[in-house]
Amino acid sequence: MENEPDTAMRRYGMRIAAISAYAPRNRISNRRIAARLRFERMRVNADRRRHGLGPLQTKEKKVYATSDRWIQRFIGFKERRFAAEGEGTIDLAARAALLLLNETDLKASAVDGIVFGSVTPSYLSSPPDSALLQDRLGILPFDGGQPREFYCIDSSLACSTWVACLRQAYLLISSGAVRNLLVIGADKMSDAINWQDRAFATVLGDAGTVAWCTAVPVEEDWFGPEQFWSWASGRDGDIISTPVGGSKSPIHSLSDVTDYRNRLTMDGAMVKELIVPLVGGPAAKAALRKAGWTMDMLDLAALHEANLVLNQSIVEQWSGSGFHGKVLDAGGMFGNTTTASIPLALALNADALNVGSRFIWAAFGGGLTVSIVLGQIRHDVRVLTAV
Amino acid sequence: MENEPDTAMRRYGMRIAAISAYAPRNRISNRRIAARLRFERMRVNADRRRHGLGPLQTKEKKVYATSDRWIQRFIGFKERRFAAEGEGTIDLAARAALLLLNETDLKASAVDGIVFGSVTPSYLSSPPDSALLQDRLGILPFDGGQPREFYCIDSSLACSTWVACLRQAYLLISSGAVRNLLVIGADKMSDAINWQDRAFATVLGDAGTVAWCTAVPVEEDWFGPEQFWSWASGRDGDIISTPVGGSKSPIHSLSDVTDYRNRLTMDGAMVKELIVPLVGGPAAKAALRKAGWTMDMLDLAALHEANLVLNQSIVEQWSGSGFHGKVLDAGGMFGNTTTASIPLALALNADALNVGSRFIWAAFGGGLTVSIVLGQIRHDVRVLTAV
Repeated sequence: MENEPDTAMRRYGMRIAAISAYAPRNRISNRRIAARLRFERMRVNADRRRHGLGPLQTKEKKVYATSDRWIQRFIGFKERRFAAEGEGTIDLAARAALLLLNETDLKASAVDGIVFGSVTPSYLSSPPDSALLQDRLGILPFDGGQPREFYCIDSSLACSTWVACLRQAYLLISSGAVRNLLVIGADKMSDAINWQDRAFATVLGDAGTVAWCTAVPVEEDWFGPEQFWSWASGRDGDIISTPVGGSKSPIHSLSDVTDYRNRLTMDGAMVKELIVPLVGGPAAKAALRKAGWTMDMLDLAALHEANLVLNQSIVEQWSGSGFHGKVLDAGGMFGNTTTASIPLALALNADALNVGSRFIWAAFGGGLTVSIVLGQIRHDVRVLTAV
Repeated sequence: MENEPDTAMRRYGMRIAAISAYAPRNRISNRRIAARLRFERMRVNADRRRHGLGPLQTKEKKVYATSDRWIQRFIGFKERRFAAEGEGTIDLAARAALLLLNETDLKASAVDGIVFGSVTPSYLSSPPDSALLQDRLGILPFDGGQPREFYCIDSSLACSTWVACLRQAYLLISSGAVRNLLVIGADKMSDAINWQDRAFATVLGDAGTVAWCTAVPVEEDWFGPEQFWSWASGRDGDIISTPVGGSKSPIHSLSDVTDYRNRLTMDGAMVKELIVPLVGGPAAKAALRKAGWTMDMLDLAALHEANLVLNQSIVEQWSGSGFHGKVLDAGGMFGNTTTASIPLALALNADALNVGSRFIWAAFGGGLTVSIVLGQIRHDVRVLTAV
């Protein structure tokens, strides 16, 4: 840390005082996912018959085929949670945030702002989830008749969202603009599943998390201006994409919805081909170089949990460069919760969050994008879970 | 400016070096809006007859009733632009940004990041527009085989988005984290119109803008850490809201789409009742107080152009508190372009952007939210328009 180049400025440091994670109770096994995909295949075949078309070809049928064994072997996931009907991203976030306010000494009136990371906003265009959460937490917009200053933003960067939001929090807190911020990572990914394609159907899950970020003296900073690194490659945007439903291609017909064209698609082979060598190699190295750190300094790692097998390949490459830290994950029990995956992994491994530990948190995916942060735990972290 | 309280920190100041604005060619008059609403009313009445229901009641018919005269009188809008079929938010932004790169000395390789403000993202969940724009501008993700650091984020805060994004840019640039940032305000609002409700049908329009923000010495800073002020009131979230299509209430049936339940709704009377006295009074005063400024110091104002009549009421209140500056707007010729409205007003009034002028830019709307920034133009601004 002493070697940190001081090209960027801060008045305060930032710590994460507490992390809270919520996951819905409804557990969905790999077997249920496989059964649902089979059901869809039968439905599509029946539709085709009705329209005088032949049955699906072997190649077309393949995208519906999966099993518990296949998912565990190639993805490493055992189950995931799905939110209830009517439970949106705001509800997942509010559960985690209310737990945090109830169980810590953070008062609603001391919260200065909310950076709400999600790729599945509760409402299109308006209202913003950050504003809705303010209300859910009982944070009052007026104080003695005067409007109370409050910072809100909804942000997204596909699977890299959470680290990108943490960087926003760091800029706000380290500059002195705000003191206490809630960084949300919450997603109801179950609604984004295309049930005619195993690529995402086998992985996505729902969860809500909140990280209470607060100002500390610079010498107690967990992070540093040079410890955030990010990358994007928009030319690879189609590898993880929702074809219909955004402004580029609005919903025009019922079949857009019934054929799940407004759901996420993924070219898993391309993700693996591009992301593994990049995050396993030059991206992590660039982040370390910027901070003046080396792989062997790292005690802990948390990677966006899109696929545990893929993450293992990344960590193996890191190990070849001197990494011998502990990898924290959700053990394949919650699926890919997108913006919630890293904070969820941290919350589920509270015992590992020891003072002194140096960590790398690496988020990557749609865009393509990569967001990496390096830091050192310098205070006890309160961890709360309702999973 | 000398009185600015120095509770927040910066290494650099920020200027806006250039603003570029694009609007589609397709002009939509008030008469065409009125005709489209009439057509919808007839369609709904025909549907009701088919289902054995009586015609719409007088009260129900009211939401379809408008005219050129009514819109000009109560909203102040004359026309707006609609993007072409297949033209999404990314295309509106790319047009403005390519114009800027072509006409200024900013090279693609000198752009360090993109803060993409929009409430109508091109794609749901992924890919992010900021990453797509990187590609459209020819900003390369690799440099000599190594991943090139690049900052991306997509952000939204309903109608307050643009000022909130400018604040993010200020934090990134003033801390020294990046040097050249493109702040996008782009929205294809025409796809968010509920054609069975005049509230938004009479106002929304499409546009794309980019502000090139760049680092300057602190003593040339246009802004200051204390010159941004923001507010939210999530309990009023339902006043401007999209009922269906987000994670809180996903699309379940064709009627969700055909009845426009996945489009924006607005309780215009409540917006007026809450926003006008707030922005006209205590919100603007709180922003000025935080900066140590007074109303009479302001030379220029740009307000989110949701409704010119409403804005006039706000400015009248400001005038009562000593404001005697010039108000910049798009003159009701582009409608409410949401995240694009303030930069579009600036671009259309290039002659007023004189060195030395102190300004207030006030964004407000869905959430409810308010985001205000105060500043002083200290360098020539290059303005480009393709409208």
